[in-house]
Amino acid sequence: MPRWRKLGIIAGAGALPRRAADACLKRGAPFFVLRIAGVADEATADFPGAECGLAEFGKAVRLLRAEGCDAVTLAGLVRRPNFADLRPDWRGAALLPKVLAAAARGDGAILESLVDSLEAEGFIVVGAEEVADDILATAGAFGAVAPDAADFADIRKAAALIAAIGPFDAGQAAVVAGGHVLAVEAAEGTDAMLERCAGLRAEAGRAGVLVKRPKPGQELRVDLPTIGADTVRRAIAAGLKGVAVEAGLSLVLDRDAVVAAADANGLFVYGFTNREVQSP
Amino acid sequence: MPRWRKLGIIAGAGALPRRAADACLKRGAPFFVLRIAGVADEATADFPGAECGLAEFGKAVRLLRAEGCDAVTLAGLVRRPNFADLRPDWRGAALLPKVLAAAARGDGAILESLVDSLEAEGFIVVGAEEVADDILATAGAFGAVAPDAADFADIRKAAALIAAIGPFDAGQAAVVAGGHVLAVEAAEGTDAMLERCAGLRAEAGRAGVLVKRPKPGQELRVDLPTIGADTVRRAIAAGLKGVAVEAGLSLVLDRDAVVAAADANGLFVYGFTNREVQSP
Repeated sequence: MPRWRKLGIIAGAGALPRRAADACLKRGAPFFVLRIAGVADEATADFPGAECGLAEFGKAVRLLRAEGCDAVTLAGLVRRPNFADLRPDWRGAALLPKVLAAAARGDGAILESLVDSLEAEGFIVVGAEEVADDILATAGAFGAVAPDAADFADIRKAAALIAAIGPFDAGQAAVVAGGHVLAVEAAEGTDAMLERCAGLRAEAGRAGVLVKRPKPGQELRVDLPTIGADTVRRAIAAGLKGVAVEAGLSLVLDRDAVVAAADANGLFVYGFTNREVQSP
Repeated sequence: MPRWRKLGIIAGAGALPRRAADACLKRGAPFFVLRIAGVADEATADFPGAECGLAEFGKAVRLLRAEGCDAVTLAGLVRRPNFADLRPDWRGAALLPKVLAAAARGDGAILESLVDSLEAEGFIVVGAEEVADDILATAGAFGAVAPDAADFADIRKAAALIAAIGPFDAGQAAVVAGGHVLAVEAAEGTDAMLERCAGLRAEAGRAGVLVKRPKPGQELRVDLPTIGADTVRRAIAAGLKGVAVEAGLSLVLDRDAVVAAADANGLFVYGFTNREVQSP
């Protein structure tokens, strides 16, 4: 039994908000989708819900309360906005100094300040994986292919690198090929990072691993690293050998499609534990 | 007085090999330019020298010895090659296992193994800044504009981030804007990193600093972070406020052109000391 009566799904980009809504439908649990204007996938308009501007915090709280939501989940990607272009409502404007101060620390800090504000309004903030419990990455190989010893060395190096940049609130992803750090994610995001990898690999044949994991100490109810079939397709286009995510701390959207895309191309998709990536 | 009789300038890409040769000419010091085929700038063919394949280590040693060179400097950028495409000569092939093992640690490790091999052949390996002593970055503002307190905060954050990724032998550069890490350099290099920054800045107006510094503990005779007028122009195109390099541990090619380009666009170019970027 969930620990809330009705869930507000605050919908950013991508498929995660739909997955959360579908999970509620399947369980017959009441929900309401608050679509962020210009950001949420159009398909989320098929669910009961309403639209709200990114900085209209007052309107968002009003809508969620009117619908009887006592809990919210932040689902889907929201790119850092141009703060000068925001059109906040009155309560959004009141919140802005706090958000701007957080913005100077990083994207994770912005999300944490938003979680704080929603909790201060009395909402229970839950992680998307608590809503759709089948999307949390499991440990081990997802499909037919498993990483070999050299791949594990790349996974360990990338995982340690992401942990090392954690305090800077940069990215949650890196690509390492044969010990060589090809790319480190920052504001450009995983897709753009994968795009540049194709031209950077010195090796012939498939090489390299995309690794995603949370920053150490990050707020785990928002912004968990996420992969989907599209991530696997981009890893294939980049010529990589596999994708690895931290088990229990990453989301896998549409696991069947992820495994199908990986298996069809001989890629591995692997959920590693923190113990596995500690230095020996 | 230099501590060598005749200098071999092993010429990679960019303007640094020319600067080193010009510095020798100006002093009347004997030198010989060994141009790496397909990599060295064509203008280096105007100096006394010869051409050599990237993996022809035997030929390189023979040419340098025949010319009476007792010292060498590695000048200019060499991108990590596709090792499968290399055409090593006999001695290059003998060296390859060591280079490949180093390649699994990073680009810095490859250069270190090359320095070791050249020293084992009896050459004195000198840094380019020992040849052209006016190219080492000085401390303080280079032109008319100096960083303000917020810029210093960005410089400190980027400098600490580069230090944190040092053990992974990734990149020597990062871009931070208003506390937000826009980009972290890895195999793509500084130019490609700056190109993606233009689309990533959320702020209106100029914002952000490109910071370059060596990785902690790196071999300082090769691969010092380098900027030139072109770097400044790319920083301008990316919408940044300034460029900062570690004083005494970075190279500035054609300082007059760097200052002219920066001043014409209101950018700062700053040489910071390690003391300045320590956490307060």
